[in-house]
Amino acid sequence: MALLVLGSVAFDDVRTPAGFRERVLGGSATYFAWAAATLVQTDLIAAVGRDFPDEFMALLRGRGIGLDGLVKMTDADTFHWSGRYGDDLNVAQTNWVKLNVLGKWKPQVPPAWRSHSFVFLANDAPQNQLAALDQMTKPRLVLCDTRDLWIDQDRAGLEQVMRRTDGIVLNDGEARQLTGERNLIRAAHKLHQQGSRIAIIKKGEHGAFLSVEGQGFALPAYPVAEVVDPTGAGDSFAGGLMGFLAHHEATDWKALKLAMLAGTITASYCVEDFSLDRLRTLDVAAFERRMGEFRQFLSL
Amino acid sequence: MALLVLGSVAFDDVRTPAGFRERVLGGSATYFAWAAATLVQTDLIAAVGRDFPDEFMALLRGRGIGLDGLVKMTDADTFHWSGRYGDDLNVAQTNWVKLNVLGKWKPQVPPAWRSHSFVFLANDAPQNQLAALDQMTKPRLVLCDTRDLWIDQDRAGLEQVMRRTDGIVLNDGEARQLTGERNLIRAAHKLHQQGSRIAIIKKGEHGAFLSVEGQGFALPAYPVAEVVDPTGAGDSFAGGLMGFLAHHEATDWKALKLAMLAGTITASYCVEDFSLDRLRTLDVAAFERRMGEFRQFLSL
Repeated sequence: MALLVLGSVAFDDVRTPAGFRERVLGGSATYFAWAAATLVQTDLIAAVGRDFPDEFMALLRGRGIGLDGLVKMTDADTFHWSGRYGDDLNVAQTNWVKLNVLGKWKPQVPPAWRSHSFVFLANDAPQNQLAALDQMTKPRLVLCDTRDLWIDQDRAGLEQVMRRTDGIVLNDGEARQLTGERNLIRAAHKLHQQGSRIAIIKKGEHGAFLSVEGQGFALPAYPVAEVVDPTGAGDSFAGGLMGFLAHHEATDWKALKLAMLAGTITASYCVEDFSLDRLRTLDVAAFERRMGEFRQFLSL
Repeated sequence: MALLVLGSVAFDDVRTPAGFRERVLGGSATYFAWAAATLVQTDLIAAVGRDFPDEFMALLRGRGIGLDGLVKMTDADTFHWSGRYGDDLNVAQTNWVKLNVLGKWKPQVPPAWRSHSFVFLANDAPQNQLAALDQMTKPRLVLCDTRDLWIDQDRAGLEQVMRRTDGIVLNDGEARQLTGERNLIRAAHKLHQQGSRIAIIKKGEHGAFLSVEGQGFALPAYPVAEVVDPTGAGDSFAGGLMGFLAHHEATDWKALKLAMLAGTITASYCVEDFSLDRLRTLDVAAFERRMGEFRQFLSL
């Protein structure tokens, strides 16, 4: 069953204790789609600028990602993020952001994609998330993400997105900011009250927490001994999670728990190298091998 | 099978976002013994001062904790810790410490206890941990704890303790300090190299990680919505863990994993109130009920 993702495709400049990379392929929708495409056909809605290289376009196409919704704008450059990580790889520090095309673009969902059953609204302006959602006929499961910027600048829009989607996937810092609750169990309950039936809180190296109307499930992270670059880990997590659900055409409690494992495994590959470098070589066999190891690691 | 613990019995002054308590019963051995005594006979080696009230003595005796190794010194006062927690309940800030009896005392293990099979060397000076160990005939499983102070001031002594015991239980900050490794998977491997066959790293609200010669197992924390006072959580964790192993007379891989659950559950009760207030009313039935809930919470 096909999966639709709305979000950003970007250039990233990233410095981590392991090194520095400039103008590498990044963005929330890129990581999400790349991760999900291991498991299911994934179609992408995003905008890039006139400076976006054919080489990156070919890379996305080669992965089998649907690009009919990827608009190349001729009057602006591609979204560009520059950031760094210190010893605490859980926290990204932003050096600067050039929004470029992101400030000008309104998402258009190609007609053939409007009946997709599984939809992920990756980090983007709430108004863009709502605009994409308006074009969908009757999706079976819609999850959204957000970030500090939108919590600050368009809380009303974000709360509308929460009420109109089935659930939210966000990191611990964002969950605290959005709910005002320090304790993540209480934060999840508050997210339910704010309209998200499904709340998924990512905690980086500390794993992830799922709450569906108060029923909980938690996972530690997969043990990665050498984290090279955490950029995109959260989006890969969401991609693995939604890819798993779409592939199995399932949205029940048991499927959501297994999808949390799939997300964890996808993210564990993502952080092992810069940009998409490790995910590029990931195939289903490797994914399933690590899923097995992880289940062993968790088994009592 | 009886369990022996060496450590501190203390007065605590504690401030948390939930309130303030002065001169409440605390100390590493107190929390450990109180937690373990839910599951097994637990005997305590520690020193208190002339100011230690009969009321606290009666409390420990009433719990069935063996007190023949609890020395009341007449020339000094009881160890006293004053600390506080801010919004991040994972990190205790020390206001001040009065070592008092701890600086003067040498542990004496009563002859009847020297053949105990399960031994926990809770946080204490490495020289005291070694002195207690010298008096044991042939324990089956010895785990130790430590803290920043001893890592700084007597690393050589601590490394001797590590080589002479089966394993170490410590928190994430201590593991990083002791090994110089930020990544906890790598820290665990380093602890093995330093002499601990079993390495257990506690991460507070983020759960705990077990590594035995490189074989790993991780748990999230039990979801507690209202943490009142984290003091003693780590010692209660160790008490639940060792109490479980001693009760089942087991030290194998499967038992260690279940013991991690027992530790997690015990700690989850500890943090729900100040001092020992919540643990005081904990019985085996409540413990087993929450164990069941937790297994449900973790189940795939």
